[in-house]
Amino acid sequence: MNEIKIFSPATIANISCGFDILGCCLNDIGDEMVVRKSNQPGITISKIEGIDLPLEAKNNVAGAAGFALLNSLREPIHFGFDIEIYKNIKPGSGIGSSAASAAGAVFALNALLNYPFTENELIQFAREGERLACGSPIADNVAPALLGGFTLVHSTDPLQIIQLPSIDKLYVSIIHPQIEVKTSDARAILPQQVALKDAIKQWGNVGSLVHALHTNDIDLFGQSLHDYIVEPYRSQLIPSFEEVKKASLNAGALGCGISGSGPSLFAFSKSESIAKKVSQVMEQTYLKTQIPFFIYNSTINQQGIKILNQK
Amino acid sequence: MNEIKIFSPATIANISCGFDILGCCLNDIGDEMVVRKSNQPGITISKIEGIDLPLEAKNNVAGAAGFALLNSLREPIHFGFDIEIYKNIKPGSGIGSSAASAAGAVFALNALLNYPFTENELIQFAREGERLACGSPIADNVAPALLGGFTLVHSTDPLQIIQLPSIDKLYVSIIHPQIEVKTSDARAILPQQVALKDAIKQWGNVGSLVHALHTNDIDLFGQSLHDYIVEPYRSQLIPSFEEVKKASLNAGALGCGISGSGPSLFAFSKSESIAKKVSQVMEQTYLKTQIPFFIYNSTINQQGIKILNQK
Repeated sequence: MNEIKIFSPATIANISCGFDILGCCLNDIGDEMVVRKSNQPGITISKIEGIDLPLEAKNNVAGAAGFALLNSLREPIHFGFDIEIYKNIKPGSGIGSSAASAAGAVFALNALLNYPFTENELIQFAREGERLACGSPIADNVAPALLGGFTLVHSTDPLQIIQLPSIDKLYVSIIHPQIEVKTSDARAILPQQVALKDAIKQWGNVGSLVHALHTNDIDLFGQSLHDYIVEPYRSQLIPSFEEVKKASLNAGALGCGISGSGPSLFAFSKSESIAKKVSQVMEQTYLKTQIPFFIYNSTINQQGIKILNQK
Repeated sequence: MNEIKIFSPATIANISCGFDILGCCLNDIGDEMVVRKSNQPGITISKIEGIDLPLEAKNNVAGAAGFALLNSLREPIHFGFDIEIYKNIKPGSGIGSSAASAAGAVFALNALLNYPFTENELIQFAREGERLACGSPIADNVAPALLGGFTLVHSTDPLQIIQLPSIDKLYVSIIHPQIEVKTSDARAILPQQVALKDAIKQWGNVGSLVHALHTNDIDLFGQSLHDYIVEPYRSQLIPSFEEVKKASLNAGALGCGISGSGPSLFAFSKSESIAKKVSQVMEQTYLKTQIPFFIYNSTINQQGIKILNQK
């Protein structure tokens, strides 16, 4: 194989109760990437469409993740890789834009090298892209991008990722307000100390969410979508957060929260028709703010990155 | 039915990572209770053997729980109940002594009344016994005592208890040092605020423990048995805690922690032979302290309270 074209999906990290540990993968929002073997050693990025991002490989998350993989090869190779990135996921959206590029790059390189690395190793490499993007090798977006479905970061050192089962029918509505929330700001706003009584509620919800996924209990899944720890702070950075959440729940959503570090908000619904209503009320609520926004709809992607073409 | 004899089991609350939400039920440690219909209305306690506890029903957790049940009856009854309690679980041991009495009373009354209440309602009544015992209607011991296996308190208001699956082969060693740790002191020593970074590790472990139970993954179960929040404080109240924990893990235990609010320590093992070794090293370690202690061994009780006889 000399060339591979992939779909690299958007992801939702945290999922309300699971700050820094839970994530899930989306079907209908994502980038495309074409990666081919090249005579030039190392990694080049010859094209980025959709967004203005650095073409210099070492300054691009796809390149940084790719180099981490190449540096771990046990045998030297006598060729390099050229990457084209067709971005649909906007950086700073909170739905895993950097993770999609980083995970996509390592997935494609691994395929072109005939799969020398395990999925867990690929997550490790992709985390180096996240380190470039936000200063920290977070795994809660790259893990679901690579594995699909719902994932849980059991520990980061050593990295231990758990793939959780998924509920059959789950529909996601996302609103992405066109404001900038820097991950670093969204981290800085969080307190270092949290109330024990809130932490207890939070881990009660994490436990019940994992149980809900295992038992396909969509109502319990919804009842677990509460965030007593992070949302009270980060929601301050997102105009009309409370209105969107309230309108979404009134429209029948199972739960609504901040995707990753925001500003995108997600809502889960148990049918496509409810999800459409939820998207509509999200839209109506945000139209009043004068802030431009995008709306996305998706189902859960069980597979993760998808190969669109290879030759 | 006019009389019922039951086995009311000991329980382990918290299970390291799940402070205030997780609990499990034991097979080989527990009280026996005989409850019979009586001509005297209300509840009398005619006998308590094993421990010196109040015979006056309203001052006894079994009575308090029983009265909560009687007060919820939709139709008046023209008889009362007499309770005999044969205590094996010592109060203040941290393995659910008050929960066993409270849960046993409501289970027996419900049976003698031909089962008017659901298990969830019985948990509610039994919590009133806990309220008398420790000032707070905690559910993390009465729930596993009544339901068996592993339970998760998803929320306390409204009460929502989840019954988790259990791992097939799990052996428990318990050491009960003969010192007094009051639940109120064990609560008072806890900080009201905890570090967010520790809380994240804690809910990562709760999520992975629930996943481990669903997937019968005994090693992941063991890897989830860490407590970054409560153990650092409560362990100060238990002499030689670190030594017992270290010796248990060295002997092959999957994990070791404080049962409930202590002073009992539990360790899980994946075979009976390892569990025996763990009990031995617990014993050897504590023999050096000059503090008297009891050692118990048990498997997991999948059923909860057991009917021994009825007539």
